[in-house]
Amino acid sequence: MAIPEKYVDILDKKALAHWATIGPTGEPQNNPVWFDFDGEHILVSQTQKRQKLRNVKRDPRVALSLVDPENPYRYIEVRGEVVDVTDDEGNSFINKMAQKYLGQPEYQWHQPGDKRVVVRIQPKHATAMG
Amino acid sequence: MAIPEKYVDILDKKALAHWATIGPTGEPQNNPVWFDFDGEHILVSQTQKRQKLRNVKRDPRVALSLVDPENPYRYIEVRGEVVDVTDDEGNSFINKMAQKYLGQPEYQWHQPGDKRVVVRIQPKHATAMG
Repeated sequence: MAIPEKYVDILDKKALAHWATIGPTGEPQNNPVWFDFDGEHILVSQTQKRQKLRNVKRDPRVALSLVDPENPYRYIEVRGEVVDVTDDEGNSFINKMAQKYLGQPEYQWHQPGDKRVVVRIQPKHATAMG
Repeated sequence: MAIPEKYVDILDKKALAHWATIGPTGEPQNNPVWFDFDGEHILVSQTQKRQKLRNVKRDPRVALSLVDPENPYRYIEVRGEVVDVTDDEGNSFINKMAQKYLGQPEYQWHQPGDKRVVVRIQPKHATAMG
């Protein structure tokens, strides 16, 4: 696996992942997201109309920066590629994220008309510290 | 200023900045850094031999993602460009960062032979939430 054993625990915590993608002119874009880790892939939620989604369809390469919520001097950077974007049927994935991060069974900020997708990232390389 | 007034306070806190740059093959790279904000520029420390520094000399465009340390649902993304890289004379900048983040007058992890520089980022555009 691309993630060193010693740092897998960060992916199992309620860390935020700062998710960098490549924008339309080759520039970096970066923002915090909730994520899930299934032991191999990192999964994030997006609405279909977001720039972020257009970015990864154009260039699937991403870099995630995560700090251990229990230790600000411990972090991991995961570089990888988006390998799959699928519909979030019944909003089950975003609701799972609301449960993970908020302890709530349903995502509260869902907007009528929002169509959500699940973005699956294959880690390829990681660097870590701490 | 490119930073909305309402979010300037995040730049004055002890937040970490997740700093995305463009790597040698156009891929994103991303990791957390300490930073200073002088009211206009965002300043970060680097050692001269770091990949990060080579990245911004090749392509000065960067994106910083910062979460309010007092509110995980409040964040700002700052996109900008590296406009200047200068020697960190007497390590005064990294020591200032050790004071800000650790409350210590001197940076403890300085390695013999490390030459540090100060990277000055001009914010061009910001998006924020919360």
